[in-house]
Amino acid sequence: MARLVTLTTDIGWAYAAQMKAVLYRTLLPGSVVDLTHDVPAHSVPEGAFLLQYMAEGFPAGTVHVAVVDPGVGSSRAPLALATADGSVLVGPDNGVLWPLASRLGSPRAVRLDPERVVPGRPPSATFEGRDLFAPAAARLAAGAAIEQLGSPFDPIRRELPVPRGTPESMRGEVLHVDRFGNLITNVPTEWAPPAGARLRVTLGSQSERILSRARTYSDVPKGRAAVFGSSFGLLEVSVREGSAARRFRAGVGHPVRFRLPLGPRSGIKQL
Amino acid sequence: MARLVTLTTDIGWAYAAQMKAVLYRTLLPGSVVDLTHDVPAHSVPEGAFLLQYMAEGFPAGTVHVAVVDPGVGSSRAPLALATADGSVLVGPDNGVLWPLASRLGSPRAVRLDPERVVPGRPPSATFEGRDLFAPAAARLAAGAAIEQLGSPFDPIRRELPVPRGTPESMRGEVLHVDRFGNLITNVPTEWAPPAGARLRVTLGSQSERILSRARTYSDVPKGRAAVFGSSFGLLEVSVREGSAARRFRAGVGHPVRFRLPLGPRSGIKQL
Amino acid sequence: MARLVTLTTDIGWAYAAQMKAVLYRTLLPGSVVDLTHDVPAHSVPEGAFLLQYMAEGFPAGTVHVAVVDPGVGSSRAPLALATADGSVLVGPDNGVLWPLASRLGSPRAVRLDPERVVPGRPPSATFEGRDLFAPAAARLAAGAAIEQLGSPFDPIRRELPVPRGTPESMRGEVLHVDRFGNLITNVPTEWAPPAGARLRVTLGSQSERILSRARTYSDVPKGRAAVFGSSFGLLEVSVREGSAARRFRAGVGHPVRFRLPLGPRSGIKQL
Repeated sequence: MARLVTLTTDIGWAYAAQMKAVLYRTLLPGSVVDLTHDVPAHSVPEGAFLLQYMAEGFPAGTVHVAVVDPGVGSSRAPLALATADGSVLVGPDNGVLWPLASRLGSPRAVRLDPERVVPGRPPSATFEGRDLFAPAAARLAAGAAIEQLGSPFDPIRRELPVPRGTPESMRGEVLHVDRFGNLITNVPTEWAPPAGARLRVTLGSQSERILSRARTYSDVPKGRAAVFGSSFGLLEVSVREGSAARRFRAGVGHPVRFRLPLGPRSGIKQL
Repeated sequence: MARLVTLTTDIGWAYAAQMKAVLYRTLLPGSVVDLTHDVPAHSVPEGAFLLQYMAEGFPAGTVHVAVVDPGVGSSRAPLALATADGSVLVGPDNGVLWPLASRLGSPRAVRLDPERVVPGRPPSATFEGRDLFAPAAARLAAGAAIEQLGSPFDPIRRELPVPRGTPESMRGEVLHVDRFGNLITNVPTEWAPPAGARLRVTLGSQSERILSRARTYSDVPKGRAAVFGSSFGLLEVSVREGSAARRFRAGVGHPVRFRLPLGPRSGIKQL
Repeated sequence: MARLVTLTTDIGWAYAAQMKAVLYRTLLPGSVVDLTHDVPAHSVPEGAFLLQYMAEGFPAGTVHVAVVDPGVGSSRAPLALATADGSVLVGPDNGVLWPLASRLGSPRAVRLDPERVVPGRPPSATFEGRDLFAPAAARLAAGAAIEQLGSPFDPIRRELPVPRGTPESMRGEVLHVDRFGNLITNVPTEWAPPAGARLRVTLGSQSERILSRARTYSDVPKGRAAVFGSSFGLLEVSVREGSAARRFRAGVGHPVRFRLPLGPRSGIKQL
């Protein structure tokens, strides 16, 4: 089976098509998979989150290209990472690749050398995705080792934000707002009490609210907010068939706090 | 030729990529086709309409997965349907699959049993698309019969809404609003008089208007509304290079009435 | 390697899926590549620009289908073009195909004859993409010559808008607004002075502004506008991590003027 190449970007379909034109010069049809080109523009943290969770289930040996790159053309390094399972990650050294690489295990890194990847053709200063990362991915998918395309390098090792707290008070932040307006946090579902419990939830600068911990969307009435165990294994705040992002005016990077158990207390708004 | 797997969802590209990660573990590159991930959120009727019309032209034997599933994790059954032409449909038992299945002929149904699809790995309560439907589709694309993955089941048999009326007065509803704002109804084009006629059209709670029945967009001036025979074989109300949805403040599920012939009558607004 | 078929449209994913259903009847899985279905609705000039720049890097011999077709069903001809490198272009004769065809070299053209493409099945008046262009593309990808599907025809030969001016004053227009709000003009980067220079820039009916000519986004502060050499080889006006389209209320077709050098002058707004 051909080695797959995945694409995760904030550049939209049209620019991504220019990357595919490069890839299709040498790769078999069908070996290039669009993960998403809808990462919010310039949002490296959300790109890193999405890449990790979209890509970690792909077969070992897949080449993952991520282009969320507000610093394109600057001195930030262009990177290739090889992981313990034989996968390869290609993209800018701004943290977008590291959480996935770290999860796939024992990453080795090189700084891509344009002269080795595309001899005689220096990349444009505004679109290395097409001019450097795509040709590198094509070479790597064809079997090249990362060491053939660059020199050992010490990349930015920034993990996803780490949640903190005690079983009574868990603090984290919003990592992702999905298409439905669900707020995915970094607090593990296993930290929270099981469905049926109640939680005191503080999102961003909003006042504290009491929400139910529910098992699935259909367990709450339409329009009601609740706390769920998301499919990422992380707590999520959602409004059934509505948008929690709009309801709570919350977005990526906003702090979140879950507290329990609910003792006698006044002045908390029930939602 | 490999058996194709199509994906029709309201979950967006990033969640869909997690489904693809599952499919690519065993399926050949290029066998997975994204139909759309832009079905309006939670809109089962529009999902059912789009699935039928996008998928019915696919080769016999294709596996069609639909995830428009506001009731995920509830007691609604996870379903696989096998049709007379050898195609297979996978998704929730909420009506999204039935119109296509019925069109493809003589559906047999099973309720998917997670223990048979993914032994020892119960699906998450919020994303059966990834944890149950995708693995089932991979097994079915590889040749499994639906009966190997579940037990016979009597699914919800909800067809698309049926239009009614006489040749003089046809009543239906809007089934789909496309990217251009065209309003696709469920009234068959063959019920209407040929291009050149005029029709009295009532949309939702708007007052009746006289519109031309036109053959194609370029037969009416820019900005003018008219009634067309859509590519679905259904009447459509459109504004040339404009949005009928905005013009008439109409959306999916809104009632529509077409009347003819136009007798002498006053007080009708010409548009 | 199978011959690739690319799709560039303004019709969205759901209609495009109906085209793919036709293509997959005879083509190998994975040979169909979505370039974009997000071309602004009815915008032939932007479609022509995007098609040229997305498709020109694809392998020789690729079949490119473009459906940006406000005149569908009118007397405008359905077209197939064969170019010097063995590529084939399929779409309406409204100018969307010509810039790419001209770039690929020496196009021969035929007017597609529905009776030869889909004998006995006249296309719908509203969706020739599905009913004529997709079946033609399938035949052409399988090796048919364009002359088998139609008769020689003299197509509209409209190139992309040509920039004019002297090295001191360059005039052009905005060809494309990308996902980030960057304004891509038709003025070649090589006409402009190198990074570090300053330019007097007039966009649409806005008053003249002084902007830096910068090498890459990270060379200017966040929120600052500047002139870059885009990845298209064309000058682009951008706001770092912001939208130049919003900042300057500018869009496709708006005139742009770059002047230099900056002599003593008053009343120019520095941005």
